[in-house]
Amino acid sequence: MTDTPQTDTHADAVEVAGGRLIRTQGVTAPAGFRGAGIAAGIKASGKPDLALVFNEGPDTAAAGVFTTNKVKAAPVLWSQQVLTAGALRAVVLNSGGANACTGAPGFQDTHATAEHVAATLSDWGTETGAGEVAVCSTGLIGDRLPMDKLLAGVTEIVHELAGGISGGTDAAYAIMTTDTVPKQAALHHADKWNVGGMAKGAGMLAPALATMLSVVTTDAVATAAQLDEALRAATRLSFDRLDVDGATSTNDTVLLLASGASGVAPSQEELNAAVLAVCDDLADQMMADAEGVTKRVTVTVAGAASESDALIGARTVARDSLVKTALFGSDPNWGRVLAAIGIAPITLDPDRITVSFNGNPVCIDGVGAPGAREVDLSGEDIALRIELGVGDAEVSIRTTDLSHAYVEENSAYSS
Amino acid sequence: MTDTPQTDTHADAVEVAGGRLIRTQGVTAPAGFRGAGIAAGIKASGKPDLALVFNEGPDTAAAGVFTTNKVKAAPVLWSQQVLTAGALRAVVLNSGGANACTGAPGFQDTHATAEHVAATLSDWGTETGAGEVAVCSTGLIGDRLPMDKLLAGVTEIVHELAGGISGGTDAAYAIMTTDTVPKQAALHHADKWNVGGMAKGAGMLAPALATMLSVVTTDAVATAAQLDEALRAATRLSFDRLDVDGATSTNDTVLLLASGASGVAPSQEELNAAVLAVCDDLADQMMADAEGVTKRVTVTVAGAASESDALIGARTVARDSLVKTALFGSDPNWGRVLAAIGIAPITLDPDRITVSFNGNPVCIDGVGAPGAREVDLSGEDIALRIELGVGDAEVSIRTTDLSHAYVEENSAYSS
Repeated sequence: MTDTPQTDTHADAVEVAGGRLIRTQGVTAPAGFRGAGIAAGIKASGKPDLALVFNEGPDTAAAGVFTTNKVKAAPVLWSQQVLTAGALRAVVLNSGGANACTGAPGFQDTHATAEHVAATLSDWGTETGAGEVAVCSTGLIGDRLPMDKLLAGVTEIVHELAGGISGGTDAAYAIMTTDTVPKQAALHHADKWNVGGMAKGAGMLAPALATMLSVVTTDAVATAAQLDEALRAATRLSFDRLDVDGATSTNDTVLLLASGASGVAPSQEELNAAVLAVCDDLADQMMADAEGVTKRVTVTVAGAASESDALIGARTVARDSLVKTALFGSDPNWGRVLAAIGIAPITLDPDRITVSFNGNPVCIDGVGAPGAREVDLSGEDIALRIELGVGDAEVSIRTTDLSHAYVEENSAYSS
Repeated sequence: MTDTPQTDTHADAVEVAGGRLIRTQGVTAPAGFRGAGIAAGIKASGKPDLALVFNEGPDTAAAGVFTTNKVKAAPVLWSQQVLTAGALRAVVLNSGGANACTGAPGFQDTHATAEHVAATLSDWGTETGAGEVAVCSTGLIGDRLPMDKLLAGVTEIVHELAGGISGGTDAAYAIMTTDTVPKQAALHHADKWNVGGMAKGAGMLAPALATMLSVVTTDAVATAAQLDEALRAATRLSFDRLDVDGATSTNDTVLLLASGASGVAPSQEELNAAVLAVCDDLADQMMADAEGVTKRVTVTVAGAASESDALIGARTVARDSLVKTALFGSDPNWGRVLAAIGIAPITLDPDRITVSFNGNPVCIDGVGAPGAREVDLSGEDIALRIELGVGDAEVSIRTTDLSHAYVEENSAYSS
């Protein structure tokens, strides 16, 4: 692991959702899960590119949320099909290739990968069917995966797991693409059950789901239906509210697996809160590591007629290239904010809009406030708040500025 | 005019719409129109910033199309009100300030400007009411205009007009903001009537209307209703299909004025075709001069289920930051094209999509074509064609790449 950056150690625990959340642990924090990450040779760089998350049980309940893009990668089509049964024994993930737009042969590659994971786990002693193995891929769209390397890697990684290594962090490294740091979070609930997660995603961040892969695990006792409710609610309020460039990937996948190993069955509300806390923290880490980010921006639309209006308004501003380039330039150009919100298809009155940057009012009732051009936005964190004054709904969207580095990273090579 | 670049002299005439189109003439090419442009001191740089287009008649029929942004600048609110009568004697335009988000005082400024234009024209001998004067402003949102300079400039510019100068080109210079060249086009119809136009617009280019001001004139005999039909049809197919960054301004205005001085009354079809030809050429000039452009890109969606589907699909791809940065890098990254079209809310079958760059197929039936990664996109012009294979409709959108220069121009200063 010497060729990759160290885990970002925001290790200070945060009290949230009835437990303590830390960033130094991930998918193997809950009991009953093993993980591993290796370099299988899929990436030309030789960096880690294959990860496995294995559920030892006793339960195998699971749920998934997938991209809404009509162009879906082969592993998404496969995993959606697998999840209809509501159970997963393992998730295999590769970076170095998205296996998207690869036609029927690409789907056969995904199927073969799941079959090989199942067979190797069965050989090891845990009877597993291919229909209990989800597959996730990330990387360049359009190329077939090097199946010889991938299948050999599967054999190797199952042997690593069998060696008793609990490598959640290794798995988090192995799914990175343009990420500069792995993203992990684990919540240790006061009632002796746990939720852990890992995520990758730095470019193409948008709804529904930021272009991303994420696996979340828990040792709580929960049915597939309970997991599905918790996961949908959590992604709606976390990953779906991270919007860097309005792009939506062909491969977005978020999975939630429960082992039941804690023996504790939390209430639906407790489960929802814990899964949300982990997803929200992972989304925050993804924003901070987004491609070319120089500013971490939260766009809040308040006083909207409905939550839907607030969400659409915040998203419209968060995606506006002219707002984002102004923020890159630390320019409190509130006129662009008004121009942006004005094209959102929502209820608004131009003469009642109030805008503030980091708490400093720059526009009141649609007209510039004194000193608006002098507000200092030179720091890395910008809170942009837009009060519509037509209702009570409020939604925040995480986004970034539009920088030279974003253009560089996305133009200099195929990714 | 020594401090401004020379007019781009694509002077070679083009045969179109029953006439000859040239770029060295603009709003004063049709009989019955005078124009002028001066430096009134509104811009700190001292560059030309005030333009006037005056219709000598005998007719004063007119039509207008305005921004769909809910946040509308004072001059838009004023001109929309004025146009309900279907007649205009003059249009006064200023750069150096948008007079948007300036509240009731800003509207009073616009009103006072129109009153002063009307009074000065009346003094000169052409009885004019403020209700026959449209006002257009462009520049930074949120600041009041320097009314002392603007009103003094109005007096001066009417005197220039009265001097008999036919300064259409001067007017085209005076409305420039971040434009690097003035945009003009004139169509001389074989039947002895003419259409001329000028436009400004380089940033915030998007529907409905690229952030832009444009005045189009004709010496044809036509009613306000005929002009309205011709203008709406023309903008829908020209300015509305230019989409650089998805932003829509508070000030977008396109006006069409008819003097009737030719005495020729063309058919509606002839009028539509001529107005479209001028608007289309102006849109082409705007694309070529868009902020930070290094590639001129035409995105065509063909084989769509409906024109609406084709338009939405082409617009979605044209706005996609990941597609646009790839094009800046001359990267034939067709996977991003598929990911972009896949989120458009239109009818499509991922397995029937075919994509080509400059005629080279890069993706056939949703799968990469041999040699796709080697297609040469190093030239300035890129034709991106997406065949959906589900119908017969086809629409093209003009756009640009997303370059370092775009980020620079939009972040380095308030504009």
